[in-house]
Amino acid sequence: MNSESTSSAPAALIPSSVTSNGSAVTASSNVEYRNASATGEIPSYDGDDRARATDFANYFCSYAQLYHQKQMLTDHKRMEAYYDAIMGNADVFRDKVVMDVGTGSGILAVWAAHAGARRVYAVEYTDMANHARRLVEENGVGHVVTVIQGAVEDIDPQSLEGGKEAMECNDGCIDIIISEWMGYFLLRESMLDSLIRARDKFLKKNTGLMFPSHTTMYFAPVMDEEERKTSVKEYTSSMTDWNDFVESTKTMYGVDMGALDSAFQREQKEYYLLSSRWCELRMEQVLAEPCMVKYLDMCTCTLEESRGILRGAPGSSFDFDVVGEDDDTASSSLNPMPARHAVVSGFSGWFTADFKSRTDADGSMAPKISHPTLLSTGPENGYTHWGQQVFHLLSNIPVIRGQTTRIKGELELARNKDNARLYNCRVRFSTTRRRTGEPKAAGTVLMNGPVIETVYQIP
Amino acid sequence: MNSESTSSAPAALIPSSVTSNGSAVTASSNVEYRNASATGEIPSYDGDDRARATDFANYFCSYAQLYHQKQMLTDHKRMEAYYDAIMGNADVFRDKVVMDVGTGSGILAVWAAHAGARRVYAVEYTDMANHARRLVEENGVGHVVTVIQGAVEDIDPQSLEGGKEAMECNDGCIDIIISEWMGYFLLRESMLDSLIRARDKFLKKNTGLMFPSHTTMYFAPVMDEEERKTSVKEYTSSMTDWNDFVESTKTMYGVDMGALDSAFQREQKEYYLLSSRWCELRMEQVLAEPCMVKYLDMCTCTLEESRGILRGAPGSSFDFDVVGEDDDTASSSLNPMPARHAVVSGFSGWFTADFKSRTDADGSMAPKISHPTLLSTGPENGYTHWGQQVFHLLSNIPVIRGQTTRIKGELELARNKDNARLYNCRVRFSTTRRRTGEPKAAGTVLMNGPVIETVYQIP
Repeated sequence: MNSESTSSAPAALIPSSVTSNGSAVTASSNVEYRNASATGEIPSYDGDDRARATDFANYFCSYAQLYHQKQMLTDHKRMEAYYDAIMGNADVFRDKVVMDVGTGSGILAVWAAHAGARRVYAVEYTDMANHARRLVEENGVGHVVTVIQGAVEDIDPQSLEGGKEAMECNDGCIDIIISEWMGYFLLRESMLDSLIRARDKFLKKNTGLMFPSHTTMYFAPVMDEEERKTSVKEYTSSMTDWNDFVESTKTMYGVDMGALDSAFQREQKEYYLLSSRWCELRMEQVLAEPCMVKYLDMCTCTLEESRGILRGAPGSSFDFDVVGEDDDTASSSLNPMPARHAVVSGFSGWFTADFKSRTDADGSMAPKISHPTLLSTGPENGYTHWGQQVFHLLSNIPVIRGQTTRIKGELELARNKDNARLYNCRVRFSTTRRRTGEPKAAGTVLMNGPVIETVYQIP
Repeated sequence: MNSESTSSAPAALIPSSVTSNGSAVTASSNVEYRNASATGEIPSYDGDDRARATDFANYFCSYAQLYHQKQMLTDHKRMEAYYDAIMGNADVFRDKVVMDVGTGSGILAVWAAHAGARRVYAVEYTDMANHARRLVEENGVGHVVTVIQGAVEDIDPQSLEGGKEAMECNDGCIDIIISEWMGYFLLRESMLDSLIRARDKFLKKNTGLMFPSHTTMYFAPVMDEEERKTSVKEYTSSMTDWNDFVESTKTMYGVDMGALDSAFQREQKEYYLLSSRWCELRMEQVLAEPCMVKYLDMCTCTLEESRGILRGAPGSSFDFDVVGEDDDTASSSLNPMPARHAVVSGFSGWFTADFKSRTDADGSMAPKISHPTLLSTGPENGYTHWGQQVFHLLSNIPVIRGQTTRIKGELELARNKDNARLYNCRVRFSTTRRRTGEPKAAGTVLMNGPVIETVYQIP
C-alpha cells in the first residue's frame, strides 16, 4: 500500500494551470447530480471542529506555502488591478482603518499602508501570518499594519481600533475591507462567506468600502476542440487500460474485477469529461457575446447568494446566437463574433472584479472612488492565474455555414456535497438553427436539437 | 486567490512514482530537526475528532479511488507475493477465520476465501468498502467474506464469529490477519499502528498468524548522481526565479519581498534537497552490502517500535565499506559490490516482507507455513510501486581508486510533528579512507571526513 497524496508539499508545487481535456462521444448524459439541493455551509464555520479540521487540511494547507503565494504574486493582471485600485485611490485610504481578509504574504496590507491608511488589520488563518508580519516590518509599515493570525470570524471587534465605540453605536469600525478572495469561476473556494461575515461584523454600514466593490460572472459558448478531444482520448485510453487490467487479473489471480467496471468508468468520466478545465482562451475561441450570469454587489450580497446560482435565479438562463457566416454576411458584422468553420466545444465561465463607488442606496454617503479599476479574468484580458473554466460538451455542436445556432438554456451552480469549497455546475440547454440574418425569435426553425444536460465538477 | 489543491481527484491521478532529484552544494547542513523527540500518535485514534478528520482528509481520500487501487493492483511483485503466500499456504487457511485489515478493493479477502477460509472479515475505512462488497459478491464468495466499513479499532469483537467466547477465555477470535499495510520505507503512512491494535484485539494469542509475518528495513549507500544533480539544478533554478521575483516586485509595486528570502529558501530546500525521492535503483547503483536497520516480528512488535527508529536503537547504526578498486583488486572479489569510478550520491532505504512461520516463543504451537514467501522492494527485485527511497547527500563522496571509503554513522526515523503519517529521517555519518585490502578497523587512515548530519522528509 502506498499513498502519494498524504504529502502536501509536492502537490502545492504543481503549477495551477490544468490544461488537459478533449472531444465528444455521447449526447445528453444522465449523470446523477450529487448536489442538487445543496445548501451546504462552509464546514469551517458551523462550529463543527471535525469539519473545520477537514476544511483546513483540504483548503488552507497550500496557502501556507510561499511557493504558492509567489504564483499569485506573479499574476501581474491581478497585482496591477489591486495596486491601481489601492494606490490610485490613495485619497479614500488616507487616515482610514482598513482590514485585509486573507492577507497571505501581506502585500495588499502593505499597499494600504503606503496609500496612507492609519491602521491596517491583516487577517490570515495559516502560518503565512508569520511571513506577513516579517514583510510588514521590513517594509517599514509595522507601525501601521497589525497582522492577526486566525479566522476573521473569531476576531473580537472590541480588540480593534474604534471597535468598542462601533459596538456601542451599532456600526462597524472598519472603513475599507480589501480582500483577494476570488476562486475559479469566482465562487470556487467559497471564501466569499468569510468576507461577507467580516463585512457584516466590521464594516461601517453607510460609509464603508469593499475592495473589490462588485463582481460579475460571465458565461459563453466556446470552441476548444483540441483540448476536448485530448480529454476524450485520455478517458478512452484509461478505460482500455482498465479492461486490460480486468482481463489480466482474472487470468493471473483468479479474481474478476469486472464487477467494478461501471464504478471505474464513472470515476474516470467524472475526472476526464465531467470536470471543468483551466484554460487560457483566445478571443476568437469565444463564439457569442458572453452572458452575465451573476452580478454581486459586495456591499449587499448575502451568504445565500454566495452559495452559487440557483435554478431559475435571475441571470441563470442564457440565450446565445452562434453565427455561421456565409459569403454575404461575412462583411456585414451581424454579430461581433462571427464563427467560420467553427464548432461549439462547450461553454466557458470567468469573472470580473470592479473597484468602484458604492451603488447601493445605503452607501450614497460613502467616499467616491475617483479612479475605478477593473480586474477581468476573461479571454480579452490575457493571462491570469484564474484563467477561464471550460465545460466541454460530450458531443460538439457544428456551426453550419449560413445558419445561426441558437443555444438556449440555464446554468446552475451549487456547492459540492463532500467539500463545500468546491462546486458542481449543471448546464442544461437545447439548440435550434435558423438562416443567418433571420430574427432570433421569429426565424424559421431549420433544426431543433434535443435537451442536453450535463453536470460538471469544478475541481 | 486560487488554490488548486482543494481538489482531491487530480492528485490521486498523478502517478505514484516521484522521480525528480539531483546534485550537491554544501556539506554538513544545520537543518532544525522538527521532530526530534517525536512520540506522535496517529491522530485518527487518540479520540480527537479534529485530528481524525484531518487525518482522513490527508490520508484516506486517495484510497477511496479505484484509480489508485488499480495502481496497487497492477504492482505484480506485490500481487504475486500475496497470492503465493495465501494460495500456496491454503492448508493453513482451510476453515480458518481471517481478517483483512484495510482491504481496499477486497482482493486479499477474496483470495483468503479461495484458499478455503471459513469466514473472512474485510475491514475498510473508506467508501471503497462498497466496491469491495460488490467484488466479493460477484466473485462468488459473498457467503464467506463480510465487508465491514469502519476503523478496525472500532469493531466490537463480540460481533464477530467466536468473538464472545474469545472475550470470555481472554484469547482472540481471528486465526489469520492479512494486511497490506506497508508504506514507503516500510513505515510511512503509519498504518502499522492499526494493524498492531487489530492484532492485540482479535488475533488468537498462541496460534494466530500474521500475513506478512516479519518485515525488515534495509539501508545502503548508493550512486544516483544524475537524479541528485537534477534536484540541485531545480532547487537553484527555483531560487533564481525567486530573486527575479523579488527584484521585479520591488520595482513594480514598491514592496521588498526580500524579507522572505530565507523562508522561501528553506521551503525550497526542504522540497528539492531534504526530501527523499522515489527511485527504482539498479543493483549496480548499490555500493555496499545493505545494512538491516530494523527487523519487526509482526506477532510481537509494539506501537513503540512502529514509531520509527530511535537514536541509538539496535540496528540504527551502519558501517559501510565502499570499495574503490584498483587494477590488482579488480578480480579479487574483496567485496561483493566493488565500485569503479563511483561516487556516493546518498543512501537508500527499502524493505522486505516475509510470509513464514512464527518465530516467537509463544507461537511454537501455531500452524507452520509450508511455503514461505518473500516480498522484496529492494533493487534486486525490480519494479514495485514502493520503489526505494533515496536520500541524496548535499555533497557527494567520491570513491577513490584503490581506496576503500568507510561510511559509519546512524539513522533515526521519527514521525513528522505535523502529520504523523509521514516521517522525518536523520542521517549522521562520517567517512574515513584506507587502502583497499587493509582491514576495516586496523587499516591506516588516509583521510578522515567531517561528521555530516542531514534531516530529510519522507514525503
